[in-house]
Amino acid sequence: MTQKTYHHSVQIYYEDTDHSGVVYHPNFLKYFERAREHVIDSQRLNTLWNEKGIGFAVYKANLTFQEGVEFAEICDIRTSFIIDGKYKTLWRQEVWRPGATRAAVVGDIEMVCLDKNKQLQPLPLEIMEALQAS
Amino acid sequence: MTQKTYHHSVQIYYEDTDHSGVVYHPNFLKYFERAREHVIDSQRLNTLWNEKGIGFAVYKANLTFQEGVEFAEICDIRTSFIIDGKYKTLWRQEVWRPGATRAAVVGDIEMVCLDKNKQLQPLPLEIMEALQAS
Amino acid sequence: MTQKTYHHSVQIYYEDTDHSGVVYHPNFLKYFERAREHVIDSQRLNTLWNEKGIGFAVYKANLTFQEGVEFAEICDIRTSFIIDGKYKTLWRQEVWRPGATRAAVVGDIEMVCLDKNKQLQPLPLEIMEALQAS
Amino acid sequence: MTQKTYHHSVQIYYEDTDHSGVVYHPNFLKYFERAREHVIDSQRLNTLWNEKGIGFAVYKANLTFQEGVEFAEICDIRTSFIIDGKYKTLWRQEVWRPGATRAAVVGDIEMVCLDKNKQLQPLPLEIMEALQAS
Repeated sequence: MTQKTYHHSVQIYYEDTDHSGVVYHPNFLKYFERAREHVIDSQRLNTLWNEKGIGFAVYKANLTFQEGVEFAEICDIRTSFIIDGKYKTLWRQEVWRPGATRAAVVGDIEMVCLDKNKQLQPLPLEIMEALQAS
Repeated sequence: MTQKTYHHSVQIYYEDTDHSGVVYHPNFLKYFERAREHVIDSQRLNTLWNEKGIGFAVYKANLTFQEGVEFAEICDIRTSFIIDGKYKTLWRQEVWRPGATRAAVVGDIEMVCLDKNKQLQPLPLEIMEALQAS
Repeated sequence: MTQKTYHHSVQIYYEDTDHSGVVYHPNFLKYFERAREHVIDSQRLNTLWNEKGIGFAVYKANLTFQEGVEFAEICDIRTSFIIDGKYKTLWRQEVWRPGATRAAVVGDIEMVCLDKNKQLQPLPLEIMEALQAS
Repeated sequence: MTQKTYHHSVQIYYEDTDHSGVVYHPNFLKYFERAREHVIDSQRLNTLWNEKGIGFAVYKANLTFQEGVEFAEICDIRTSFIIDGKYKTLWRQEVWRPGATRAAVVGDIEMVCLDKNKQLQPLPLEIMEALQAS
C-alpha cells in the first residue's frame, strides 16, 4: 500500500484537441493509462503479457471533468494507488494544468488482471512486489 | 423526461482495438459521444455552436467495463437520458455486443452546456424542446 | 482488375476534429482503412487473421490534403483498386465532402499481406477471388 | 535551409497499437506532427494561431511503412526540413526503432500555412527566421 504520488508529464498536441478548442474528453483516459504504465513499468507489462499472457484491464473508471485543457499546455498527471485484495488495484489520477490550483480532471480507476481469454486473474506476485517497492 | 432507448450501431475497426486484441477502453467514450450526437442531432449541435457559441461538455462519466469487444463486431449503443433541472442532462449508455445477454460496457454520463469561455450555461430552450420531443 | 468505385459514408464527429476546426489529418487514413474493410469484408479479414494468421498492411500511402473537412459533415469515401501481381493491391481512395466538385483528400495506398511474424505473403487466393468478384 | 536532424522520442503505449500487435499506421502521422511541433516550437505555433489566425497544415504526405513497431518500444523520430520558396516547407521524417539499422517508417511531408478561412498564406517571417536559426 502506498500514498506516494507519481508525476507524469503530458504535452497537448493537435491530436489531443477537438474543434471546441480543448482536449477531447476520452483522451484523458489515455493519459491516465500512460501514467499507470510508467508506475508499473512498460517492460514489466510487456514481459507479463508475452510470457504469462496476463494484462491489466480497466474495470471501472469514475471521471470528473472540471476544466478544459488547451493546446500546447504541458500537464502534470498525478497518480497514486492502493492494492485492494488479491485482484484489484485502485488508482486516483488527476490532470493538473500549468499553474493550476485544482485538478482539471479527476479519475478513480479500478484495475484488474485478465488472461488472454479475458478471465480474471490474481494480481501477479512480481507486479504486487514491484508496486509495493515502487 | 424520457424513458425511450435510442440505438446507434458501431462497427469495430482496426483503429478501435489495441494489441491486447480488444477495443481500447477510452474508445467507448467516443461511441457514447457519437450516439448522443445522433439523439441531439449533429446539425442542431453545429448551429448551437456556430450561432450561439454553446456546446455540450461531459462533466462526469462513470464507466464499468464488463467485457471486451472484438474486431469486426457490430455493437449496439443503447442510450437513454433525463433532463435534470436547468443545467444538466443525465445519460445512461450501454455497449451491447452481437447476441449478448448483458452490456459489455455501461456508462452514466452527466452533460452540461458551456459557452466559448467554458462558462456554464443553462440547457438551451430549443435543445430542451428537441430532447423532450425526441 | 476492377474499375468499380465503392462508396462508404463517414460522419465527422468531435473525435475527428482538432482545435483548428477541421478534421485532424491522420484521421483520413482511418476512413480509408474503414472503406477498404467494407470492400474486402471484415468477416473475411477476421477469418483470414484468426485461421491463417494473415493480415493486410499498408506498405505505402501517398496523400494529398486539398481541403479541410468540418464537424457534422457526412463524407463519401470513394474507393477503387487493382490487383498488381501476386503480392500487391493498389487502392485509389478519395474523401468527398457533401456537394463538393473535387475530392477534399486523395490517397494512393499500396497494400500487402503479412503473416504474424510480419513476413510478406502472397495475396490469399480466397481474397483475390473475392476482390475480383466484388 | 538546414540539413540538421532533430530527434524526438516517442514511447509506444496501448493507445498506439491495434489488434494485429503493432502500431496502427495512421499514428505515425501523429508522431511526425509532434516532432515538427518541437522543431517549430508549440508556443510559437500557439501565438501564431491566437494572434494572427495562421496555422500549419499538411498538404502532402508520402509514407512508406517498412517495419512494424511494437508496444513499449521507445522510438526516435528523426526530422529534417528545407524551406521551399515563400509558401512551402518540405520535411523528411523517419521512425527509428531501438537498435534499428534502417527506419521503420519514412515520410516526406509538405507543409503550408493557412489562415482561419483555410486560405494559403506565405510562411510567416518570424517562423521562417526561427526555422533558419534553429
